[in-house]
Amino acid sequence: MRGVLCSRTDARLVDVAHDFPRQDVRAAAFWLREVLPTFPPAVHLVVVDPTVGTDRRPIVVVAGEHALVGPDNGVLLPAARALAGDADLACYEIPVEDPASATFHGRDVFAPAAADVHERGIDDVEEAYPTAPDPVDLTFPEATVDGAHARGEVLVVDGFGNVVTNVPGSFLTGRWGDRASVAGRGVPVERTYAAVDRGERLLTVGSHGNVELAVNQGRGDEAFGVEAGSPVEIDLA
Amino acid sequence: MRGVLCSRTDARLVDVAHDFPRQDVRAAAFWLREVLPTFPPAVHLVVVDPTVGTDRRPIVVVAGEHALVGPDNGVLLPAARALAGDADLACYEIPVEDPASATFHGRDVFAPAAADVHERGIDDVEEAYPTAPDPVDLTFPEATVDGAHARGEVLVVDGFGNVVTNVPGSFLTGRWGDRASVAGRGVPVERTYAAVDRGERLLTVGSHGNVELAVNQGRGDEAFGVEAGSPVEIDLA
Amino acid sequence: MRGVLCSRTDARLVDVAHDFPRQDVRAAAFWLREVLPTFPPAVHLVVVDPTVGTDRRPIVVVAGEHALVGPDNGVLLPAARALAGDADLACYEIPVEDPASATFHGRDVFAPAAADVHERGIDDVEEAYPTAPDPVDLTFPEATVDGAHARGEVLVVDGFGNVVTNVPGSFLTGRWGDRASVAGRGVPVERTYAAVDRGERLLTVGSHGNVELAVNQGRGDEAFGVEAGSPVEIDLA
Repeated sequence: MRGVLCSRTDARLVDVAHDFPRQDVRAAAFWLREVLPTFPPAVHLVVVDPTVGTDRRPIVVVAGEHALVGPDNGVLLPAARALAGDADLACYEIPVEDPASATFHGRDVFAPAAADVHERGIDDVEEAYPTAPDPVDLTFPEATVDGAHARGEVLVVDGFGNVVTNVPGSFLTGRWGDRASVAGRGVPVERTYAAVDRGERLLTVGSHGNVELAVNQGRGDEAFGVEAGSPVEIDLA
Repeated sequence: MRGVLCSRTDARLVDVAHDFPRQDVRAAAFWLREVLPTFPPAVHLVVVDPTVGTDRRPIVVVAGEHALVGPDNGVLLPAARALAGDADLACYEIPVEDPASATFHGRDVFAPAAADVHERGIDDVEEAYPTAPDPVDLTFPEATVDGAHARGEVLVVDGFGNVVTNVPGSFLTGRWGDRASVAGRGVPVERTYAAVDRGERLLTVGSHGNVELAVNQGRGDEAFGVEAGSPVEIDLA
Repeated sequence: MRGVLCSRTDARLVDVAHDFPRQDVRAAAFWLREVLPTFPPAVHLVVVDPTVGTDRRPIVVVAGEHALVGPDNGVLLPAARALAGDADLACYEIPVEDPASATFHGRDVFAPAAADVHERGIDDVEEAYPTAPDPVDLTFPEATVDGAHARGEVLVVDGFGNVVTNVPGSFLTGRWGDRASVAGRGVPVERTYAAVDRGERLLTVGSHGNVELAVNQGRGDEAFGVEAGSPVEIDLA
């Protein structure tokens, strides 16, 4: 894909991430929503698709001054909303001449389209590409917070094993140093991993602003026995 | 190596791949032949050498508007032929002042040479470096295709476990949806991984144009029990 | 972090390494001391901190024409001394407005500071940041060499399993092809990995100039049963 991009544009290429969990659309959608808003206006090229090579439409989503190019499987929409601010999203379809010939959509479809969008400019996408009605969307469930009790689920496990939940970080505000109960077991609530001994479990708030189940210098997913989609119940004593 | 390059040239640096199987010259040669032709004219720096530090000559191969810098172990030649088109290849030797002092040829020999070739220009390589006669070559075996029967071998297994064979993709043309027999077991012939259920085996054609043994969202090498160099027999019923 | 950097500076971004052993400050400090001197003058952004999110001060170290931005845990100082040459080091503290809010210091503290140092210029750091007295330092132990006997320790194991010791490479000068004794077992002394058969152990000198315990195309740490910090005794027969 870098070869295709270098052949068609002098744009600055910046790698956002190589280490998304493979073929996990939800995890990628979550991280892109967290990470892309730190970038200046750009064309963001996203290839995360376990159904690569099917009839999944390739699309361009215009989100304010940003554009996202990738598969119509929901991976782009959460980040697009975060990038768009007050602007409306607009989705366009990328024409594919011979879909059957391509098993590597990244190289043959998405990278050429991203280069094209960059070269023509985001403002001209509307004229150049047909509208893509009803793009596949993907949203993240909301947690239920009732006083000192929260019920939610695991959104994603990061590469270090930290478990990101959908419980908002505000749930822990003012409770630093307290103990909580997760699935019936006591866990300290701490602002930093290092507040507990190496190998010990903790509840904290991650950089994404959500409650995280973690282990200092260890894997929270293994210690808490959860994975993406697992239900999470937290009681603050 | 990036430090050396940045110190000696303002050239745009583009990483082609970090994840070639370690010390596997054949796999690297195959992928470079697939990937480098997507790039615009450039100096390509290649360091894949299990015998690093030996008397293996460092060479520059001029291939049309491209140059390749790396060890004389065959890894450069297949890609060089693909890049050269109708142009002849020319090989030059990179002088090494004190071979014994370097255990990291990438940093001490290849990166300085790549920067030098870029700064002086590919056209001036001929004057600056001595000719390297008889470079080590490496070719990939041809498969035998006889009607509905193909006999070949595994060229390489990619990082996802997909098994790339030397059987040309045209062998499967018009047979989508049929069943083939691989080593006596039935396997569907499909255009896309997603045409079969998760975990199911299939025969398909990869982006390189060759027949591939794969598993949808799984590892084809494990399911078919093969590795690089294994013989492959395919019968179309 | 790349998003933050791209938003605040047009500086050329070069990845030095992604594959330092996680949360291993000593290993990172050692490799940075080896690698950074190959770079031209730059702002070097370093995030290796197992105690991330604690009261560990973020600092800027000015070392000649270079600046290093990272945590005050010793990881910066060995490289800073190597970069500074004869110049004195100067350490400054990076102000953090709300330390409690950040769990990802890389994105929220270090990347903005690195962009700021680059944009204002290294010469203006002194005026812009308060001095950081008594930064945490980290040094590597010296080996004892007595004729044909050396006693030292393992500094670090690289990603290939090669064991880097603190014994200076000069200890092996003139002994190529001899046999040494390491922990009572005979090992050949060779200039290159490939001088021994695949899977065989050897003593050699690495690109960093130190004696290395290695296995040709294998893992030296496993073959010699050592890890970072292990004592090493070598006798040249």
